[in-house]
Amino acid sequence: VRVAVVGLGPIGVEVARAVLARPGLTLVAAADVAPALAGRPLAEVVPDGGAIDLVVDGSMDAVLARGVEAVALCTGSRLESVGADLERCVAAGVHVVSTCEELSWPWEAAQARALDDAARAAGCTLVGTGVNPGFVMDRLPLQLAGVCVRVDGVRVERVVDAGQRRPPLRRKVGEGLTVEEFRAGVAAGRLGHVGLAASARLLARGLRSALAQFDETVDPVLDSDGRVLGVRQRLSAATADGRPIELRLQMSVGAPQPHDRVVIDGDPPLDVTIAGGTHGDRATVGAVVDALGRMARAPRGLITVADLY
Amino acid sequence: VRVAVVGLGPIGVEVARAVLARPGLTLVAAADVAPALAGRPLAEVVPDGGAIDLVVDGSMDAVLARGVEAVALCTGSRLESVGADLERCVAAGVHVVSTCEELSWPWEAAQARALDDAARAAGCTLVGTGVNPGFVMDRLPLQLAGVCVRVDGVRVERVVDAGQRRPPLRRKVGEGLTVEEFRAGVAAGRLGHVGLAASARLLARGLRSALAQFDETVDPVLDSDGRVLGVRQRLSAATADGRPIELRLQMSVGAPQPHDRVVIDGDPPLDVTIAGGTHGDRATVGAVVDALGRMARAPRGLITVADLY
Repeated sequence: VRVAVVGLGPIGVEVARAVLARPGLTLVAAADVAPALAGRPLAEVVPDGGAIDLVVDGSMDAVLARGVEAVALCTGSRLESVGADLERCVAAGVHVVSTCEELSWPWEAAQARALDDAARAAGCTLVGTGVNPGFVMDRLPLQLAGVCVRVDGVRVERVVDAGQRRPPLRRKVGEGLTVEEFRAGVAAGRLGHVGLAASARLLARGLRSALAQFDETVDPVLDSDGRVLGVRQRLSAATADGRPIELRLQMSVGAPQPHDRVVIDGDPPLDVTIAGGTHGDRATVGAVVDALGRMARAPRGLITVADLY
Repeated sequence: VRVAVVGLGPIGVEVARAVLARPGLTLVAAADVAPALAGRPLAEVVPDGGAIDLVVDGSMDAVLARGVEAVALCTGSRLESVGADLERCVAAGVHVVSTCEELSWPWEAAQARALDDAARAAGCTLVGTGVNPGFVMDRLPLQLAGVCVRVDGVRVERVVDAGQRRPPLRRKVGEGLTVEEFRAGVAAGRLGHVGLAASARLLARGLRSALAQFDETVDPVLDSDGRVLGVRQRLSAATADGRPIELRLQMSVGAPQPHDRVVIDGDPPLDVTIAGGTHGDRATVGAVVDALGRMARAPRGLITVADLY
């Protein structure tokens, strides 16, 4: 598969490295709109990229002119920020695997149906993936459910020590804020994790149902002085046929015993723990290259990880 | 998918129940060659099967005459015992999902290439699945590896308390034998688990390599009087590109802390434990119905779980 990476931030450069190392994938182009990057040798942008003989393009159009088959789109988290690039790729009949969180469950957006129709007509596939949403709280429970005769409910818990992560994540969880600043940031949509509802919808679809209702809470984790260490979120939901879905996420500095845990109530029941948790950034890169390798056989159209796996 | 279940032993009857309960699958036939079963109402054979309006057929040919699209073949563990039925299904262009252990990695058998060619030509799919091989030591590690940028090695450990399982498993692990009887049973192929090498080959394929070499040991687990409680098996292998694969299986009466554990050495590393382990019989039934639901989109030919997921 001839791959281009678009968006050379911290995740994008690592996706480029991973594509270079993965049999079956060939890196044929890379792009970023930042003037500091466009036109530079990719070898200078990618760590240990010495052997790469590519120059960073400045636009999606330049990339698509290079005969790529799939684009790893690592730019924005919001669908509106990647929508135009998705349309360009579909017009060229090129697959897209994106780290855009909102693309993991795009069906709340008005644009989704038109993108789906266009991608089907063009014979290409668009999918959003990553670690969360994309793995811990949706794809992994569904893959585990692949040995269950019956699933009566799903609970997932993820505890991340934000102190071991990049500064953007520490800011996103509100480290160092007062409770008032935290509450204001959550209300404004600047703080917290936006993927729980997407994961719940993916789970419900994978369980051959739909999400009937859900309730989500976002609270601060505080130190002994009342300062914010991070965020604790909880989503309680049920499928249309009455099966409970419980998702709990804590991301805070110094969170004890980081881990991921998936509990499937069913036949057989499964109680699965990932010691230390799944590393967010590295697993996102892994999820993107895995999805790129699946594009040839994937269903066409705008799909989700519940359709891809 | 119009499904038939062939082989109405303990697993087959549970597969029939699970097919009845699974949206997207329709049970249209069931068969067993045992004179005590053929001709009886299926409702009498399947627990809680009161509402089923089918009669047990006595042969694969009778089943295939009923317009089935996929057969759940739950008869033998050896490829030679299911080969003729596989050929009949391929001749009818019908998919097969089988619990036959040797079908999980069929490529050691002379018959495999011809079956693959014929199934491709007929546009149907043949696959062996189950819990082990089929999930704990192959499919699950490969699904987890779907978020790894790089996999450097895989270790899997499964501990089963045979005292909580059906008598056939307790006999298979040698419960109550002397060490001499145990050794003789292993040498004759009557005792122990035959799937470790298949799982190692599936792992190697899923890791985009092949199995270069392996060494397997089978030893008894003994009580304080020197009587056999069960079996402890270990396979040490490496892929052709040098990545170690370690599989350890203990199945013994009273085995402490039953669990499954998958450790992926790589980027990111993953250390995953299933508390209590994956229930063998129930998860085998779950794996079969999941595979049946994937037949429409599966690659054609004789495939493995490494190709199906």
